[in-house]
Amino acid sequence: MNLLIQNTLILPMTEPELSFRGDIGIADGRIQFVGKADPSFVAQRVIDGSHHLTMPALVNAHTHLSMILMRNYKDNLPSLQAWLSEIFPIEDTLTEADILTASRLAIAETIQSGVTTFCDMYFHSEATAQAVLEGGIRANLGLTLFGDEASSRARIAEREGAMLALRDDPSGRITLSAAPHAVYTCTKETYQLANRWAREHDALLHTHLSETRKEVDDCIAANDLTPLFYLESIGALEGVRSLFAHGVFLNDEEITHLAQMNASIVHNPSSNLKLNCGIAPTSTYLKRGLHLALGTDGASSNNNLNMVEEMHLAALLGRLEGNLSAWEVVKMATLDGARALGLDQKIGSIEVGKEADLIMVDLAKSHLTPLNDPFSSLVYSAQASDVSTVLCKGEILMHDRTLTHIDVETLIEESNRTWSDVLKRR
Amino acid sequence: MNLLIQNTLILPMTEPELSFRGDIGIADGRIQFVGKADPSFVAQRVIDGSHHLTMPALVNAHTHLSMILMRNYKDNLPSLQAWLSEIFPIEDTLTEADILTASRLAIAETIQSGVTTFCDMYFHSEATAQAVLEGGIRANLGLTLFGDEASSRARIAEREGAMLALRDDPSGRITLSAAPHAVYTCTKETYQLANRWAREHDALLHTHLSETRKEVDDCIAANDLTPLFYLESIGALEGVRSLFAHGVFLNDEEITHLAQMNASIVHNPSSNLKLNCGIAPTSTYLKRGLHLALGTDGASSNNNLNMVEEMHLAALLGRLEGNLSAWEVVKMATLDGARALGLDQKIGSIEVGKEADLIMVDLAKSHLTPLNDPFSSLVYSAQASDVSTVLCKGEILMHDRTLTHIDVETLIEESNRTWSDVLKRR
Repeated sequence: MNLLIQNTLILPMTEPELSFRGDIGIADGRIQFVGKADPSFVAQRVIDGSHHLTMPALVNAHTHLSMILMRNYKDNLPSLQAWLSEIFPIEDTLTEADILTASRLAIAETIQSGVTTFCDMYFHSEATAQAVLEGGIRANLGLTLFGDEASSRARIAEREGAMLALRDDPSGRITLSAAPHAVYTCTKETYQLANRWAREHDALLHTHLSETRKEVDDCIAANDLTPLFYLESIGALEGVRSLFAHGVFLNDEEITHLAQMNASIVHNPSSNLKLNCGIAPTSTYLKRGLHLALGTDGASSNNNLNMVEEMHLAALLGRLEGNLSAWEVVKMATLDGARALGLDQKIGSIEVGKEADLIMVDLAKSHLTPLNDPFSSLVYSAQASDVSTVLCKGEILMHDRTLTHIDVETLIEESNRTWSDVLKRR
Repeated sequence: MNLLIQNTLILPMTEPELSFRGDIGIADGRIQFVGKADPSFVAQRVIDGSHHLTMPALVNAHTHLSMILMRNYKDNLPSLQAWLSEIFPIEDTLTEADILTASRLAIAETIQSGVTTFCDMYFHSEATAQAVLEGGIRANLGLTLFGDEASSRARIAEREGAMLALRDDPSGRITLSAAPHAVYTCTKETYQLANRWAREHDALLHTHLSETRKEVDDCIAANDLTPLFYLESIGALEGVRSLFAHGVFLNDEEITHLAQMNASIVHNPSSNLKLNCGIAPTSTYLKRGLHLALGTDGASSNNNLNMVEEMHLAALLGRLEGNLSAWEVVKMATLDGARALGLDQKIGSIEVGKEADLIMVDLAKSHLTPLNDPFSSLVYSAQASDVSTVLCKGEILMHDRTLTHIDVETLIEESNRTWSDVLKRR
């Protein structure tokens, strides 16, 4: 189907602060023209964009999607450690069916907040993949590893066939990572195994890094090295594209080193505040040349999957220690997120030839009037509910706030039933 | 009209963490019963609350409402001072007609985010009052003072007749404050005049206090006293209820003193981050017995009037230095806001005899499933757009997201025209 978005305010994310009014033509899931309409283009569907801005869809570069069931559960604990000790025993009881329901619900919320790509680290990835394929969006799914070599080998043996098949799904919407959880939950051998698997299957290496001061201190005490240099020393990062979630506490040497690596830091400001970890100095990181993406983390430490809110928070916190611009924040949530996942040739900006992962934001709102600066409005004034239309690979997943592939009402009932069963099972 | 809200999840804000399912009856603008329905109550209108939570309407305890026109304008300046120097010259050109349009737009946004009471410090208060009365909401309006005694006397002479008439409006929805801007813009005599005026007319004293480190340092350099003790020393706070906006930098002695005063601090977390002022240690303040309210500040340093977002930010930042609970944050935004404005006998909680300023939040949303904890869900997961119904004094101002008194579409057009005229006038 040929689709024309007409007379819209385009934020292409190709040059700093650039926005202009024009048309966008889409055919076979790809962008055919941007700006001036091609007169030979025949559209089967035309969307009026006159009251909307149109921009690349958002990328949620670090989450644990199915933790959505545990949102606002055991909510007032004082630290990451205290909270994990409540959450881990529940996670152990989650079945593949639970994860399928949770993933479906989370994907509804994800699309409703303007996201078409997320990067996940969790269990029962086939269930999440099923929800991704049904929902019409994209995901990088982690082969998540915990513990020692034996348990990691067993997990790889059990999961890799299914995961490689998912990667080869004809939709091309699923990519993979090896996802050892963190230096405090995985042995050296597990990280080495993850590295080999990532290289062999052209997957990312996705791990938590320097999320808390305690994690850094414990790693130095045990290994005489900070987490990043410890991972380097054991060969965990060699020859792979790395995705480091959090990076709240990076020292000067680590920052210098990271700027030269094939790696991105995923900033998770809500979760870092919620779990009382701290505030990552993102303005400094950007100035020093680090690649930053943005993520919500799991909904149980956030407590939502709302990337519009995450942009807002990143922008506000970024002003505390520097002068992060609204444009830089939008770039973190779009093109730089795509780059972090190795997808920036495909998505992340509005350019001819790229796949059409786009969102339209309704500007006819009291809180977006007057507009003045579209990037500032988006980051400081907009809400997720202003996202009216979402396209992934040119397919309309939401229009005028109505999801085209998902029956939210039924899903809410199913999710409440599932969670109540999980609680009974404890 | 008798109104019945049936089978709703009630957050009365009368006891910590309390919520229960029940009915709320409203007659003549007041709450008649809460919980079990009075069988003799005949309702002309019944609202089904089964998928909603119902709570006191929010109180925005510090704003400059009509600065909404300047939202996202000159947005990336590095400090409060730099930004004010851009904003002041534009403000000088604003006419009463501009302020009327701006106030109307801002009141639409205010109601749409669940607020029925705001406390304003700005110019042309009669225009704002007109918009308040049309819109059906409440306001505390400041007689705003700048500069020296002569100019303050002139302003009082010019404004007080109209303002006292507004206070006596039969709706009872308007209260007043004397609002000297700040220690760095007003002389000692202006503050003394403000104090006398507030006492004479039973108004609040509303001022900015300790918003930036520079303000505190300059005040100490000039007066050998911090701003609070400087205001005490000149008699500015004697015999009045004080409302201090910001209070980011309060020393130990000031905190002890404030806990014993008839005063509230209004926390404005978005603005304090946006203008790179800092983070007020609200968890410490609460532990030390201070009265805290919550506000958005003006939309040009926020950049919205979204109190749901403000609760979220207050909760997240509150975890950085303590363990502010979601319930405490909701209380800041409701009952404690009402108390800060001297309105807690009238509004701020759901209790028999109080005036019915209530909001209903639609819980049938992907991002509010599962609910688990209603206070956490409200603070960490909800968006302003989840507020579906708003009542002020029992009158429905919004139902199912539709405003009953305001035509938003026309207002957006008018506001854009007004702002474009203001920019031409420079």
